[in-house]
Amino acid sequence: MKKFDNIKNRFPVNPWDISEKKYNPSDYFTNETLFACANGFIGVRGSFEEGNYLGHSGTYINAFYESNKIEYGEKYVGYPSEGQSMVNVANSIKIEISIDDEILDINKGELIDYNRKLDFRNGILKRKIIWKTQSGKKAEISFNRLVSFENKHLIAQKIEITPLNFDGEITYKSFLDGTIKNYIDEDDPRIDNKFKKSVFKTRELYNDEFMFLNQITKKSGKEYSVGLKESIISKSKYKVKKYKDTDKLYNEYRIKAKKEKTITIEKFSVYYTEMNYLKKQKIEVELEKAFEKGWDYYEKFQKEYLEKFWNDSYIKIDGDDALTQGIRFNMFHLLQSTGKDGYTNIGAKGLTGEGYEGHYFWDTETYVLSFFLYTQPETAKKLLEFRYNTLDAARDRAKEMSHTKGALYPWRTINGYECSSYYPAGTAQYHINADIAFALKQYYQVTDDFDFIKSMGIEILVETARLWEDAGSYNSEGQFCINCVTGPDEYTALINNNYYTNLMAAENLSFASEMVEKIKTESPEIYQELKNKLKLSEEEHFGWEKHAEKMFYPYDEKLKINAQDDSFLSKPIWELDKTPKEKFPLLLNYHPLVLYRYQVIKQADLILAEALLPHKFSDEQVKRDYDYYEKLTTHDSSLSTCIYSIVANRIGYEKEAYEYFINTSRTDLDNYQGNTKDGIHSASMAGTWLGVVMGFGGMKIYNNELHFDPKIPEKWNEYTFKIKFKNRIIKVKVDKTKADYSLEKGEPLTIYNKGNKIELS
Amino acid sequence: MKKFDNIKNRFPVNPWDISEKKYNPSDYFTNETLFACANGFIGVRGSFEEGNYLGHSGTYINAFYESNKIEYGEKYVGYPSEGQSMVNVANSIKIEISIDDEILDINKGELIDYNRKLDFRNGILKRKIIWKTQSGKKAEISFNRLVSFENKHLIAQKIEITPLNFDGEITYKSFLDGTIKNYIDEDDPRIDNKFKKSVFKTRELYNDEFMFLNQITKKSGKEYSVGLKESIISKSKYKVKKYKDTDKLYNEYRIKAKKEKTITIEKFSVYYTEMNYLKKQKIEVELEKAFEKGWDYYEKFQKEYLEKFWNDSYIKIDGDDALTQGIRFNMFHLLQSTGKDGYTNIGAKGLTGEGYEGHYFWDTETYVLSFFLYTQPETAKKLLEFRYNTLDAARDRAKEMSHTKGALYPWRTINGYECSSYYPAGTAQYHINADIAFALKQYYQVTDDFDFIKSMGIEILVETARLWEDAGSYNSEGQFCINCVTGPDEYTALINNNYYTNLMAAENLSFASEMVEKIKTESPEIYQELKNKLKLSEEEHFGWEKHAEKMFYPYDEKLKINAQDDSFLSKPIWELDKTPKEKFPLLLNYHPLVLYRYQVIKQADLILAEALLPHKFSDEQVKRDYDYYEKLTTHDSSLSTCIYSIVANRIGYEKEAYEYFINTSRTDLDNYQGNTKDGIHSASMAGTWLGVVMGFGGMKIYNNELHFDPKIPEKWNEYTFKIKFKNRIIKVKVDKTKADYSLEKGEPLTIYNKGNKIELS
Repeated sequence: MKKFDNIKNRFPVNPWDISEKKYNPSDYFTNETLFACANGFIGVRGSFEEGNYLGHSGTYINAFYESNKIEYGEKYVGYPSEGQSMVNVANSIKIEISIDDEILDINKGELIDYNRKLDFRNGILKRKIIWKTQSGKKAEISFNRLVSFENKHLIAQKIEITPLNFDGEITYKSFLDGTIKNYIDEDDPRIDNKFKKSVFKTRELYNDEFMFLNQITKKSGKEYSVGLKESIISKSKYKVKKYKDTDKLYNEYRIKAKKEKTITIEKFSVYYTEMNYLKKQKIEVELEKAFEKGWDYYEKFQKEYLEKFWNDSYIKIDGDDALTQGIRFNMFHLLQSTGKDGYTNIGAKGLTGEGYEGHYFWDTETYVLSFFLYTQPETAKKLLEFRYNTLDAARDRAKEMSHTKGALYPWRTINGYECSSYYPAGTAQYHINADIAFALKQYYQVTDDFDFIKSMGIEILVETARLWEDAGSYNSEGQFCINCVTGPDEYTALINNNYYTNLMAAENLSFASEMVEKIKTESPEIYQELKNKLKLSEEEHFGWEKHAEKMFYPYDEKLKINAQDDSFLSKPIWELDKTPKEKFPLLLNYHPLVLYRYQVIKQADLILAEALLPHKFSDEQVKRDYDYYEKLTTHDSSLSTCIYSIVANRIGYEKEAYEYFINTSRTDLDNYQGNTKDGIHSASMAGTWLGVVMGFGGMKIYNNELHFDPKIPEKWNEYTFKIKFKNRIIKVKVDKTKADYSLEKGEPLTIYNKGNKIELS
Repeated sequence: MKKFDNIKNRFPVNPWDISEKKYNPSDYFTNETLFACANGFIGVRGSFEEGNYLGHSGTYINAFYESNKIEYGEKYVGYPSEGQSMVNVANSIKIEISIDDEILDINKGELIDYNRKLDFRNGILKRKIIWKTQSGKKAEISFNRLVSFENKHLIAQKIEITPLNFDGEITYKSFLDGTIKNYIDEDDPRIDNKFKKSVFKTRELYNDEFMFLNQITKKSGKEYSVGLKESIISKSKYKVKKYKDTDKLYNEYRIKAKKEKTITIEKFSVYYTEMNYLKKQKIEVELEKAFEKGWDYYEKFQKEYLEKFWNDSYIKIDGDDALTQGIRFNMFHLLQSTGKDGYTNIGAKGLTGEGYEGHYFWDTETYVLSFFLYTQPETAKKLLEFRYNTLDAARDRAKEMSHTKGALYPWRTINGYECSSYYPAGTAQYHINADIAFALKQYYQVTDDFDFIKSMGIEILVETARLWEDAGSYNSEGQFCINCVTGPDEYTALINNNYYTNLMAAENLSFASEMVEKIKTESPEIYQELKNKLKLSEEEHFGWEKHAEKMFYPYDEKLKINAQDDSFLSKPIWELDKTPKEKFPLLLNYHPLVLYRYQVIKQADLILAEALLPHKFSDEQVKRDYDYYEKLTTHDSSLSTCIYSIVANRIGYEKEAYEYFINTSRTDLDNYQGNTKDGIHSASMAGTWLGVVMGFGGMKIYNNELHFDPKIPEKWNEYTFKIKFKNRIIKVKVDKTKADYSLEKGEPLTIYNKGNKIELS
């Protein structure tokens, strides 16, 4: 297997937080991502309140984007002409503190003490520093920040300044800064570079009882308002001046500070994009409400909310705190980044950075959704609703791609319309359709929520099944083939019969047919409605059944392995062990044509199929396939190692399973991909949870029943997790000798441990 | 076969010219291309001297381009970052004529008479009009224009104005207009749209004894100077004023005109890009020289030059004047557009328009070069020298594409560096390398010019052979495979073992090896030099031999046809007969993914291999292949029909051969592709000559000897052509009953007619 770097443990191993005791400038940019606070609607990077030239301060609103014209050297029909990019909105956490006209800058003066902690149990980012000016004045300053789970529009801050060895004036400035821009890096194709100038026009700017800013994006006309209000809680005397600059507001407080007397400032800002809340008066009301409740209230709520979250998604590894830390960090960020209203989703980079332009990918359905499904199924449902709410865009896209029927979901999007500008590793990944259908099937199996299928799911299933029917064709042997697509492995493109795509499409086709039949039988009225709405004939779904049955799966008789696609195994093998380390990730160092010419794999592809649908493959087959493909895989995508860990577990490759898992669990914490500065890797984060539950726990659904096949790594004493399944809560505890299953809630249920029935009650 | 439109005969059928008796506004834009004058260095579109809002005036200098940044939505390693675009340089033919302050505009006033003719025997574009002002004044105006073959820098004009029914003042203005821009069409991917603003900075502007303009392109820093001088030859009295505007100069003559007295103006302009000639003083000298010689001299020279050309490339079809006209028109334009100095080449659109940005493609080697090779081999040699002079750029490109050795020629270029921005139908067309090697082999076989091989050709052969060695690999059956390339058919991309590519690569490999051996044996000193220069080992070329021998050619046992590539025949067939006419060309109406998913062909691919290397295929095989592939081919590329005509001739499909040939021969004349406004289709023009000589004449080289297998279409009485071969001139005359071969020049030679020896002496 690929040699990964050893665990770096960039943070002290605490199971419930990440923390720093020392300020390290070279970590600053990366840690802005890791210390980000978010609530699924607003995300704020972990930037210092006073700013820092080493990083990029960012505040994001889920699904709030600007359009941009996508440029092509040669543009062809069906190329998306408009992109969408998540934009950096006004910075409301920004402050400036001066002692004797010396402005606090952590890179200047003397930093006597530094402490920063993001606590997963209360969701608060705290930083405390002792800073000495060049003239010798020392002050302790603490910053507390939360992005509220109580009110998704709210950011709350509490700042405390204590002069340690002087009396005198301290100047405190508080900003609402609408001059912010998106991050630019011209050399990295994964970063958008379109917004060199501000994307906003400021429509309203007000600074009196509170600060108010209303901005609108110049092209897409998307509007938001933000209000900010603060109060100096302590009794210190001060004078305040209010300023209004171009696109920027700030207040200056000149505070008479006394030695060892703490100046406390509470500060709230609210962001709104909803039409009815854009007005100044509305914002003012919301700010007033926040002030009535106050910091302590929000702090308390945050803690209670997270207590419930950690209880719902309980997971613990006894004997490996670094892993526990990694897993919890990942789950915490998934919670923070995921939209929960059916109109927003989770970006590949969450709400923590601008990588991939804030776009939603298949990462949601294939990785993130499973985590929520088994822990907070109501959030999984909202993610599926997003796809329902964007189904019309997918129908339009199918037409653009000359399909006579069906819907083709976008490879990357915010508003539901395709904005991938390199189609061989974008639109050609038709498997996105099947990934969404697969998530629907999972959701249905885990929740029994047939109402959702009837009201929304069925439309997605019908339209995706239709797309496969239109995209595929029968070969001369009567096998159903899907040509000219790209599978998950982006180092192989535009090939025929990608095994993963064909298998997932077959699942899509047959589940769609099954659900049509079920509705027909059980809800004849709804069936009639559907027939009308979708122009569904009595026979149409029998065709889907047939395509699924006749689906072609490439197989190599000589090697006795499943083939990734029709031609993959005929290519020469890329010599990964002779490739210098600095040439990874390969896509940043080789032209796509070079990569496509070889047997070299970016990420789990066939192996992903075997992870998602384990019952379709025998152990022997999986072992042969794993042995062959594992050696060719670079894991240049962060979506790979978790899957390899799961499959390695199945076939008893304990050491590899463990090493892949470690890499997965700390992808961002230890910056394994080297680009965490641009945002978290949300799929990999979810992959960690999958790695424990489906990998080590060996959990799978087969015949609508729950199976486990637990293993435990040498290093662990025991591990425990809870899952929700068909309205039960089941707790699984595995130690060196046995697995314990207990029903924490719900009706009795039969489950399986290594194939043996267990009656839970 | 595809149904082509009937012959439109947009011009009167004259075998030696194209002419118009009527001004048709809707033809204006297209006819600017057809009436273009050029000499391989300068090209001037057939725009009216007085301008016309319906078209686009263009003056081009071969290989004179501006760089532009190629934009990509997602940019990957090895993507060209700089494009090159042929630029429209200062317009020096522009004039303005006013009678009574009414400016001549052919779309206004009354056009009493109109005549325009481009004569292939003297290379002069003449236009004569009688125009009546709104106040009833009539004048006859004639415009004569030539782009000189005597002095490649020179454009000469003669303008005559005769008042027919009045005495009075006529204002004549003459311009040197540097405010020109390139043509913009945002909807067509084949047209460059980067230059919305002027690409030039004017460095010098002078108007006294003559006009002088020096401009430099803003990005690439390419500089040119143009001088213009004119003289009113007749005795009419006039006053002149000289003007200098931003980037533009003009002179205004107020001429006292007398009824029926002709005012004659001679006008010369010279364009230079050579460093030593950019100065005003130099330009003045050149203009003086031109004036000493005068219009008549240049007119005479032009005629003599073309007399020789028509004698060298004699071709005549008795019984079909429309075809003769088409063929001669095409040959004339090839002569006009082709660079002859080893540093310039022929663009896909010649020097007649800005389509494809003035880029040189494989069209040169695979189509155009053969015409010159058999008629003016010295020009063919210059075209090959161009590839030698850009070999270093191709070496650089091979490195960029991660090849460990060899050279990879650019798919499209002006300066030798790749500037295709859509690699699946650009860089992936590795066959360009083999096409160049094939042209070298042809050149060598036809001229016996071993010196050229030794001095230049061998380096190209070695480096292209090396590239194939590096790009290819052996499969498990020990066959040499070339994966992930695109063949000539751009409706199929990134496939393995394209038959055409593999076959041409094998030719390249074995010819390179043969020439290395020959040099080794015959010129040991040169061999030593080469060994040092190219780090050539004694054994290296044996490897090439082996790859050529072991080359893999895909074949379908069931259909008994050669397969276009490994996977082509497994795809569903595109139903061309059900595709609405307005959906062609398909690439303007379907996303590439849609096209790639089907058996549908843009242009001759396997069939091209069978046309270029006929002896490699049996007649039966060619017939089966033709029957299969012909039905799938859209001929959306103008490089297709000539090849189908040639192959149809071979297998006795007389009717199809003839129809394909007609389409080819009048592609531009009758605007079959619908985009002649953007420039001629030079490959198709050359394809016409190939269609007669290799198609109907059945000429091929086999075992280094010349074979003919002549056929004659029903409509023709006889046809004649001359070719140069191994320092002979051979005249071939075919009539309904027999073929006559005669040696016009050179030593006796054995040739073959339908396999039977003929001794020419």
